[in-house]
Amino acid sequence: MSANAALIKEFEAILGKDNVFTEESDLYSYSYDGAVLDNQSPAIVLRPTNSEALGKAVALCNENAIKITVRGAGTNLTGGTIPHPGGAVILTNALNQILEINEQDLYARVQPGVVTAQFAAEVASRGLFYPPDPGSMAVSTIGGNVAENAGGLRGLKYGVTKDYVMGVDFFDVNGELIKSGSRTVKCATGYNLTGLMVASEGTLGVFETITLKLVPPVPAAKSMMAVFPSMNAAADTVAAIIAAKIVPATLELMDNFTIRTVENFRKAGLPTDAEALLLIEVDGHPAQVEEDAAKVEDICKQNKAASVTVAEDATQRDAVWQARRDALPALANLKPTCVLEDATVPRSKIPAMIDVLGQISKKYDLTIGTFGHAGDGNLHPTILTDKRDKDEWGRVEKAIDEIFDKALGMGGTLSGEHGIGMAKSKYMVNETTRGTLEYSRRMKSVLDPKGILNPGKIIGW
Amino acid sequence: MSANAALIKEFEAILGKDNVFTEESDLYSYSYDGAVLDNQSPAIVLRPTNSEALGKAVALCNENAIKITVRGAGTNLTGGTIPHPGGAVILTNALNQILEINEQDLYARVQPGVVTAQFAAEVASRGLFYPPDPGSMAVSTIGGNVAENAGGLRGLKYGVTKDYVMGVDFFDVNGELIKSGSRTVKCATGYNLTGLMVASEGTLGVFETITLKLVPPVPAAKSMMAVFPSMNAAADTVAAIIAAKIVPATLELMDNFTIRTVENFRKAGLPTDAEALLLIEVDGHPAQVEEDAAKVEDICKQNKAASVTVAEDATQRDAVWQARRDALPALANLKPTCVLEDATVPRSKIPAMIDVLGQISKKYDLTIGTFGHAGDGNLHPTILTDKRDKDEWGRVEKAIDEIFDKALGMGGTLSGEHGIGMAKSKYMVNETTRGTLEYSRRMKSVLDPKGILNPGKIIGW
Repeated sequence: MSANAALIKEFEAILGKDNVFTEESDLYSYSYDGAVLDNQSPAIVLRPTNSEALGKAVALCNENAIKITVRGAGTNLTGGTIPHPGGAVILTNALNQILEINEQDLYARVQPGVVTAQFAAEVASRGLFYPPDPGSMAVSTIGGNVAENAGGLRGLKYGVTKDYVMGVDFFDVNGELIKSGSRTVKCATGYNLTGLMVASEGTLGVFETITLKLVPPVPAAKSMMAVFPSMNAAADTVAAIIAAKIVPATLELMDNFTIRTVENFRKAGLPTDAEALLLIEVDGHPAQVEEDAAKVEDICKQNKAASVTVAEDATQRDAVWQARRDALPALANLKPTCVLEDATVPRSKIPAMIDVLGQISKKYDLTIGTFGHAGDGNLHPTILTDKRDKDEWGRVEKAIDEIFDKALGMGGTLSGEHGIGMAKSKYMVNETTRGTLEYSRRMKSVLDPKGILNPGKIIGW
Repeated sequence: MSANAALIKEFEAILGKDNVFTEESDLYSYSYDGAVLDNQSPAIVLRPTNSEALGKAVALCNENAIKITVRGAGTNLTGGTIPHPGGAVILTNALNQILEINEQDLYARVQPGVVTAQFAAEVASRGLFYPPDPGSMAVSTIGGNVAENAGGLRGLKYGVTKDYVMGVDFFDVNGELIKSGSRTVKCATGYNLTGLMVASEGTLGVFETITLKLVPPVPAAKSMMAVFPSMNAAADTVAAIIAAKIVPATLELMDNFTIRTVENFRKAGLPTDAEALLLIEVDGHPAQVEEDAAKVEDICKQNKAASVTVAEDATQRDAVWQARRDALPALANLKPTCVLEDATVPRSKIPAMIDVLGQISKKYDLTIGTFGHAGDGNLHPTILTDKRDKDEWGRVEKAIDEIFDKALGMGGTLSGEHGIGMAKSKYMVNETTRGTLEYSRRMKSVLDPKGILNPGKIIGW
């Protein structure tokens, strides 16, 4: 798009003069996201402040074949919010109203720009619970979470964003409002367009209102930290906990490199000589919590845990989870470039995947810190590097290829929770089939004939 | 299709001579399903015995523009398995293998023709739990359940079929195998085609393998029956239980007419003078079950329950649920035609919906028995009539229109669990928008250009 004056005026008429940006500095601000990919500058940035303006802006973009990338907080790790060069970025940060929290019927209706943590806090203040807790929830938006099917620490027991989306109303490329889903917990009406919108990364429609399922709060919880002399012992413990039919709310793993890095980042008294840590929380009825905690402690010890420390109060519990939350920022601090992957395997394959990551780290002479959601097979191998070092970057790319290869070989998937975006679309055919890509592309081509909705993501065009 | 000899020979070459049926009696057998709609005879019935044959049969149908209706057990209540006149019916009853039950990773892979209850029993024998329990599960198939997003009694706490489908591999119209979803609990890879297949009623693809999520079994449960002097008192109790943040596994309602009919059907000692019954089961950790049961009993009594009987053993528990399972067959016995609806409202609207059903019953002078899943707002008003009585049938059709109208007016949905099929496609636009139908039709038109996949369902063509 050339940001020609007449068109800019049209956008200003729809959105107001203050909500159309074309200054170089604005364009630069929205040219990248959380992924390790090259910047691409949009030609214009649009900030609708109400649904009507959003729909009209989408329609105007389509009329003029301007490519749209909708952006929440831009925390995306696979380039899902990197705009098309010369396209438009639509910001959702002025579409940030919680429209309704219905305490009788256990649902909420929100605009896409509502910040996840603020929403979760508001829900909690009404005595209810919104379980999805992606790592970026302090700043990420519900719209972004739905577009990416964001996961989080509680995925093991409570599922991911997908499991809480009851309905999505969205604009098609013509600015027509499409309604899907319901405020009822059961709905078998029409195509499951709500399900289709989840994880579609902004390529099939522009979200207007999202209806989310809420659940009653959890009455009790207990957190603990178990220290292991080897990654394998920790990985075996994870499998043994699941085999015992205990479903912890969270079951997180950290390797020695991550432990040392976190301790260096914030002196929290982590055991820096431990080869692996498991951070575990069980929740539910107080009696169940007591029993599960005792069983988990036993299982840890049977699997060679050197120690198991149970958090005795809220302060100690917060310390456990602060350590986990510190993992990514601490690792990211070490080197100029931090590649956070989320290849995911069936949980029984965690020990094998841990072995593979160790081998890959050696083979390509790379620093890989590994932490993540071991309970659901969703590890985050994190490669610390410097993209400007061409030789090392070449090895990083080979290592990533091999990580995906091995994960798929174990019956795993390319992405547990970060999505495909631009970073992984080339691998899609390895997990699915050529026919699967063609089916997806046929669908996209008819729903977005001019290809304006977040091009280049998922299916490669 | 005219079932010409050459084409029949081609089908026989793919499927084997014994698996291609064109006799009048065979065609008649597959011309109807559980819905109150006119029969439509197919020209040919195909019974693939393996995946490869299934894919080839689909491709051959597409080449010859033969319209396909895939049929599991044909228990569908909205005409979803009524074939196109002169089309093909594909039976899944020879695609009935449980391919894998993975106890470590808590998933199963099945062919579409596996019978739901047999699958649930096999899963239970491995010490795991598959929660969805549609009313027809004794004969219904997993493929049918997924195509319809079947619900059941446990929807309130455990969700519906949708919530347990991790992956669907399916054939597109060209017989290409499309892979979606994963064996991992977290998956953000590509379009959520798995979600799209759920509830698509056989109109977008033909299922090959379904991957289902399993969960640990529930350690304890307690069932009870509460007798109420009025429907309103029972409905208020439902709202009060949810407001107390208790989530029973099942929370079922029966009106006086249904109670009397069930008691007449099987002498089980039901209180025939009760205006309403609630059948409630709470489950979970034994301590939680004790507490929840006591709270539920209190709430019932505070809301004017005349009595609350807690099942003391398995025999008494079975008696409670047998009474509930008897509701539909008992009602269906009374008159030649039984129209079972599933309009669903947000649960707080149950009292209002009960009022509306009473008014409609009077206004149109019809016998309506009401029972159903009160806990999730999914009632089953059941109209007992005789379709040959033209005058009465005219009033039935008006009553059904009004039931949907009122349910939508309360923020409800056309279908909680029976799907849209042929019976409700004319109402779709009332719940959504014209644009929503167009979006759906565009998608269907490109994925199935010749319109061979179960035409006439959901979107009306």
